[in-house]
Order: sequence, then C-alpha cells, then structure tokens
Amino acid sequence: MFQDFKLNGDRPVVIQVKEYIQRLIIKGALQADQKLPSTREMSGLLKVSRNTVIAAYESLEDDGFAYAIPGKGSYVAAMSGHSAAEGSSLDGSASLQIDWKARMNRYAISAVELDIMKQGIRGSKGIISFTSIAPDEHLFDLGDVRRAFMDRMAIEGQVLLNYGYAKGYKPLIEYLMRYMENKGVDLSGKDMLITSGFTEGFDIALSALRPESRSGAAICENPTHHTALKNLKLQGFQINGIPMERDGISTEKLEQVLKQGLTFDLAYLTPSYHNPTGIVMSPEKRSAVMKLMTQYGVPVIEDGFNEELRYSGAHIAPLIATAGQGNGVIYIGSFSKVLFPGLRVGWVLADRALIGHLESIKRARSIHTSTIDQSILYQYLLNGNFDKYVKKARTEYKRKYELTKACCEAYLPDAELTGDGGLHLFLTLPKDVNTRELLAACTEQGVIFTPGDRFFIQDGEGMNTLRLGFSRVADEHIEQGIRVIGEQAIKLINAK
Amino acid sequence: MFQDFKLNGDRPVVIQVKEYIQRLIIKGALQADQKLPSTREMSGLLKVSRNTVIAAYESLEDDGFAYAIPGKGSYVAAMSGHSAAEGSSLDGSASLQIDWKARMNRYAISAVELDIMKQGIRGSKGIISFTSIAPDEHLFDLGDVRRAFMDRMAIEGQVLLNYGYAKGYKPLIEYLMRYMENKGVDLSGKDMLITSGFTEGFDIALSALRPESRSGAAICENPTHHTALKNLKLQGFQINGIPMERDGISTEKLEQVLKQGLTFDLAYLTPSYHNPTGIVMSPEKRSAVMKLMTQYGVPVIEDGFNEELRYSGAHIAPLIATAGQGNGVIYIGSFSKVLFPGLRVGWVLADRALIGHLESIKRARSIHTSTIDQSILYQYLLNGNFDKYVKKARTEYKRKYELTKACCEAYLPDAELTGDGGLHLFLTLPKDVNTRELLAACTEQGVIFTPGDRFFIQDGEGMNTLRLGFSRVADEHIEQGIRVIGEQAIKLINAK
Repeated sequence: MFQDFKLNGDRPVVIQVKEYIQRLIIKGALQADQKLPSTREMSGLLKVSRNTVIAAYESLEDDGFAYAIPGKGSYVAAMSGHSAAEGSSLDGSASLQIDWKARMNRYAISAVELDIMKQGIRGSKGIISFTSIAPDEHLFDLGDVRRAFMDRMAIEGQVLLNYGYAKGYKPLIEYLMRYMENKGVDLSGKDMLITSGFTEGFDIALSALRPESRSGAAICENPTHHTALKNLKLQGFQINGIPMERDGISTEKLEQVLKQGLTFDLAYLTPSYHNPTGIVMSPEKRSAVMKLMTQYGVPVIEDGFNEELRYSGAHIAPLIATAGQGNGVIYIGSFSKVLFPGLRVGWVLADRALIGHLESIKRARSIHTSTIDQSILYQYLLNGNFDKYVKKARTEYKRKYELTKACCEAYLPDAELTGDGGLHLFLTLPKDVNTRELLAACTEQGVIFTPGDRFFIQDGEGMNTLRLGFSRVADEHIEQGIRVIGEQAIKLINAK
Repeated sequence: MFQDFKLNGDRPVVIQVKEYIQRLIIKGALQADQKLPSTREMSGLLKVSRNTVIAAYESLEDDGFAYAIPGKGSYVAAMSGHSAAEGSSLDGSASLQIDWKARMNRYAISAVELDIMKQGIRGSKGIISFTSIAPDEHLFDLGDVRRAFMDRMAIEGQVLLNYGYAKGYKPLIEYLMRYMENKGVDLSGKDMLITSGFTEGFDIALSALRPESRSGAAICENPTHHTALKNLKLQGFQINGIPMERDGISTEKLEQVLKQGLTFDLAYLTPSYHNPTGIVMSPEKRSAVMKLMTQYGVPVIEDGFNEELRYSGAHIAPLIATAGQGNGVIYIGSFSKVLFPGLRVGWVLADRALIGHLESIKRARSIHTSTIDQSILYQYLLNGNFDKYVKKARTEYKRKYELTKACCEAYLPDAELTGDGGLHLFLTLPKDVNTRELLAACTEQGVIFTPGDRFFIQDGEGMNTLRLGFSRVADEHIEQGIRVIGEQAIKLINAK
C-alpha cells in the first residue's frame, strides 16, 4: 500500500496527500479503527515532508475520516453508509434504479429536441466556421476587466460575495436606468430586473404571461432568433410569423393577422440588427408597429440585441422609447454580444407592477444573478471603459462586415444580402438552392455556416437562406470561406 | 442652456459631457439639424477642457446623436421615433397601455404570494436579527478570492469572458466529480451539470420531472427548506410531509405513506444539517430510507446543503454514495453557505441520461452559469484555499453554535433544541406558545427570528417553533437576543 501515490504539480501537496488517504478509506482499502502509519513512517512512504503528513492527518480528522488517540496516533474512522466500504455494494435492494428517460415530460424532451447545440455540426480544428455570432475575444480589454474587478472588490468585496438581491445589484440598476433614459425612454412607472442574460429574462417573462386555460399565442418576425423560438415553443406558445421586408417587419401582413380577431398574448420583436436578417426597422415602421399594437392591445417584448453595434446612420429610438408613457413594452437588453458573453447579465425594463412579479419568479428560480458579474460590469461602465471598447469593436467589426459583404457580392452575385450592422449577414439564395445541401458540400471543403431554415417558424421555410457570422473569422478566412461557398453554390445550381 | 451641467467625481468627464448633451437632444431641448456650440464655446460654457468636448462630440457622432459637417461644425441628428422629441408624446394611440396584473398567470401570482422576501419583516438598523443563515462575510478571505480571479484571468481570460458551455466550466466539473468521488460516490454512469446555485438545479430538475397529465406528488421531510417547498408548489406538486425525529425522517411514517399505493414522482431529502431542524440523518436511517425508496421506486433529490459544516463526529456518506451503482439519486450541491453565496454556483450530480435532459433545459433557460463565478471557484479550490477557509469557518461557527445552544438552555429551558451543526438551531417551544405572537413581542424589543411555521407543509403546523440563525450575529448580541426571546416567551406563557 501507499506505493501508487503520485504528486502532480498544480495543487498543494497537503491536499493531495489528504485526498489520497481519504480515497483509500472511502474505498475500504483502509478499514475502520485501523491505525494509520505514524507521520514519520508515512512521510517516508509517500516521500513528502513530515509536516505535510501531520497537516493532512489533521485535515482528515477535521473532516471525520480519521480520529486521533493522544499519545498513540491516528486511526481510521468508521465509514457509515458507504456502499463500497461495506462490501461489493449495499444489499442489492438499495441500488435504486430509475428509468429516467421514461420519466421525462414533454418539456424536457422538447428541450433536447430543440437544442441545436446537440444537433449542430461542430467546427473541428482547421475548419472555417461562420456559425458563431459571439464577439471576437481578441478584442477583449482584459486589463480593464481585471481593474474593474479589483476596484469593486476593494470597495465592497464582502458585499459582493454574500447574498445579493433578486432584483439585481443596485448600483448597476441605477446605471442602466440612466443608460436607458439616455436612449429616450420615459422611466415613469417603470422598473428594472437584472437577469442572467437576455435568455433568462425572456424565459421568465414568458413563464408569467403564458395563459393557463389555452395555448399562448405570439406574433414575431419571420425569420427570428432561434433561441426565442425555442423558448416560445417550450412554453407552449403558438407562433404567428410575419414576413420581413428590407425596412423591417411587414406592417401590412401584421395588420392582416391582427385583424383576424385572434387573441395574442405578446409580440416578440427585434427592431435593431434583427437576428438573423441584420435588418434595422425604420423609424416610420416603429411608429406604425406601435400604433397597431396599441390598437389591438398586444404587449410587446423588445429584444435590444446588438442595438449598440450600429456602424452608421442616426440613432434610432427603441420601441420602448417610442411608446412614451405607455407601459406595454417589455425591453430586454444585454451587452453579451457587444461586450462579454461570459458575463451573464441582462436587464428587463418594464412596467413596475410587472417587474414585481418577474422579480419573485427570478427569486424562486435562481435567487439572484451573479453579483461578481454584475459588479464587474457596473465598475467597467463606471470607469468609462464601455465607450472606449465599443468604439474599438465597431471599427473592427465594421471592417469585417464590409469585407464579408464585398466577398458575398463577388462570389455569390445571385444572393440577396441583408444586414445593416451587427456581427453577421443573412443571404437569400435562388429558390432552388437548398442551403442544407450546400452546407453538406461546403463542410467537405472545410467551411461551415448556419443554414437559415432554423430561424423560420414553419418547417420547410427559408430552405434557400443562410447566416454568415463573421465576428470570429480572420480576414483571409472570410474571403477564402465565402469563395468556397460561392463555388459550391454554383455547382449545386448547375447540377439541377 | 448649458447652465445646469454639474460634474460629479466618480465618472470620466468626457462621458458626463456626452451624456449631458445626449440627454438634451433626446428631450428635444436641442432640435434636429441645430448647430451645436463650437468646441471652444462649449468648453467655456461647461467649464471643461476643449479636448474633452472634442471627444464628447466624436462619441455623440459615433452613436448617431450628432453629425459633423467638415469645416462647419457639429449638428444635432434627427431623433427618430422618440416620443419626447416629437412633442408631448406620439399621437395618443401609440401609448400602449397593458393591465399587467390581469395578465399574470397562476404561476406568477403564486411566485409573489410565496415570496417570503416580500412579506417578511426586515431587520432595521440596530435590531438583533437571527433570521439569516447566510455566512458571516467578515470571515471571507478576500485576498484568496482576488488571487483566484487574477490567476484564472491570466491563464485564460479570453475564454472566461466569451460564451461557455451549458453543462458548465469543464475544469470545475472535473474537480467536483473528483470531490464527490472522495465522498464515496460511484461515478459510473453519472454526469454533472453546473447551475446557478442549488435553487436553479432544483427548479430545473422539477421542471423535467413534473408529470403532465396530473399533479406531481412529492415526499419530503416536514418541516423543510421553504424555498424547496415554494418551488414544489410553483411546479404544481402535491406535497406529502413526513415528520422528523432526532435522527432524521421517521422511516416508520415514511413506510406508512409509501404503503398506501400512491404514485410519488420524487422525494426531496436533506440528510445533513437539515433546514430548519439542523438534524443529521443517522447512517442506519440513510440505509433504511434508500431501501424503502428502492422498494417503491421513488427517485430521490438529495440536498447537499451545509454538508461541509460538520463540527464533530465521523464522516457520513451522502445518500448518493449509499446508493452505490444505483442511478436513482439526484444530488444537488452548493458551497453557497460554506463559502460565498454571491458566487452563484451549484452542481447536479446524477444519471448521465438525466443530466443530458437537464443540460438542454439549462441552455434554454439561461445559456450557462457565469463562467467568472465558476472559474473563481475552481481556482480557489485548486489553490487549496477551501480547506483552509472551511477550517477557519468551522472553528468560528462552532463557537457561535455552542454559545447559541448554551444561551437557549439558559434562557429558554422549556424549549426543545435541535441542530447538530450548520449555521442555525431550531427550537420547539411549549405547545401554547405561538411564535408569530412571540416574534411580534420580540420585534418591539429589537430582536427578530424566523417563525418556524413557514417551514411546515400545512398551514397551522409548527406554530410553536422557530429558527435561530446565528452566523451573522455578534457574540454579545446572541446572548442579549436570546435573553429577550426567553423573557418574552415567559410573558406569553404567563399571560395564557
């Protein structure tokens, strides 16, 4: 015994010694009330200092794996309830076996079925991947993030590490309220809830608004953000998709649908840099949409996605600003795409009474959002890093955006392009090009992208569309990748 | 105009100038195409440097709030869609008003009704409060936490700030798998999901196991953790409570309930330092409970709550270790009470197929848990800080535990005490003492605690019980506070 102990470099030696002995005890290799080798002996056996062994024995005693008899030495404690320590297993009857798959409800099964991360193709090494619309981590100003953390820890480290509030970290809420006010939002009667990113905020809002006696009914742009579609479906909503035009959702089609007299529980809209089409809804359409929603009394969930990533043109107010004192828009914002997705922080700005309910749901689900994440974000904003970073990110992404656009125009001349900013472009190819087939052909050539059909509401829609995320692709790969896509598209067209 | 600009100390001046002007534009005080004062002029008006104004104007242009005409100056951009900028409000029809309260479903309403944070008494300044069972932040080793963050950021800062995996941060998962193995758990066929604390893990598990065609049915200890009760209720479970005995749940009563032939979807159990009673389930009971669950095929959700805060006695294996190779126990762990509640990290260790489903639900709900939180925790563990901290915390809490116990024995001699460790004691007073009345009387004397009835399943149970959390109360206040509770209890008894 004790021959197989091996030190590895990355952890304190005393902990490695303790865990090694603990494991022997747990496995039953060391029996209850057996005397452990003296610290001097063990030190020789494991080739570690005697002080290390003394500390490891003490720690084992603290944790109840050993006990000391003064003047005699350390002994192994009886391991109660361990199946291994009590023979091959507890008597067979205690081996509780459950058929979990059979117990999964529709929600759990659908969550797997709709989980594109589990079905998607993974980019292997060396492949050129246009599937990501996450930011390029090489732009991250790590020094500023570190400083934000250290600054905040110095100010109130103890507060950050203890329980926070379900509603969110107060300084951050105040900051973001002012931030939204500076976008033209009338804050009267409104309040804010901090969530773990956009997704949690959206899911919480849906869970409160889902009707009980019937399926929910939602309106949204078609195509739209697939995570939003997934969550609407998981919460049982019927989805009525309205086609997109170059300046945003078709208000004509929207009115047609609203006129039919159906009850809609909500509309989910992404007016700026819409995912996947990248389209910015025009100011006129924003007014027209809000008029229709008011006329038919349909609440709006506004996705503030990428609003900060505009590369040119005048500032356009979000729908919640257009609504003035109206309380009917739930705005969900996040800096995930602009700043750091790893910081899971989003915010829901909405009517105060509604936020009160969402706050209680948030508390029931996860107590509160990481205070460290919230406080880093707050201090980073307060230190003035955000403006500086966004300026740098815009310059870099704008360049990539223009390069991607130029390459598409050169290599995919038949494709219709949309995308006014953000981190991706959306392509509509000629009707007879199936982008799933195109993807299969491109994958063989080492290039992948996101087929567009997954953003559409009905199966079989958008089969000739695709999304190109360019944020994490190097310039030369953008050109090379799009050339491959163009070549394969021509082959497909010629083969028909 | 420009007279009311005031600098405040904590933010970069250029951002303050930019936001000030932006606000004037948003509010319509500066009109579209109006020329802004020259940078020289504005510098004089606001009493800031000309370079600051130049930078602020540039930033306004970047954000689309202004535009420059070379050689002429900066002009206000047209604010599209802003209600304020277009007069008192957009035409009235666009002021979408929603009666949110009327639209809240049963889930949202219940979340508020069951939200004790919204109903509880708040400890005002100067009051002695025994309501918290959060750790004492004065024990936090902030230096070690800072070092863990800096170490990890240096190793892979870019990875930490970009998207992570729904399942969790891989190094942390590997660490915690080994940690659980060292508690005697057989890992074969098992997998782990990282969640935002215990609560999210529990809620996700319930949402997957909740049956569709009928109400769910759950067994749990009575009393038990009120957040767990809340989530079971919110997910529509009928709860069958089994009374507690000094060595844990009554196996006799448990068997009686199971024998009735009802279907139970799960049992929720806290075998160690049970909340609120503080009782540790004996090894014999652990085996007996697992035998019963196996016999009746009831899955177990084990709450690993405070398992690390044992002050004496031998190590006792968790139920998931007792189950050996059985896959029927879902173990949910967290270091929130032992380490830092602000780090929202918990883990679900369970059957691999089940974890696959829970992972997809986690992804649908919140993408993933804060990578910063996970990586700080990982590096803190790896650096060997955990053992050191737990040793210090145990010593401190054990002292407070013994003090609290001694004070209760002195001032509340008629109370039955339970609590073998952890951060609180549970008191059962004579039948005729109503602890809600007692709380009212004590509040007037500046002392508050948690009435015990909220931990019981049926209304009207446990009316003579209370929980004393001592972790954040100073020694002298423990003594003083319990003396007050004792005095008021005697008054109440004498008044009857």
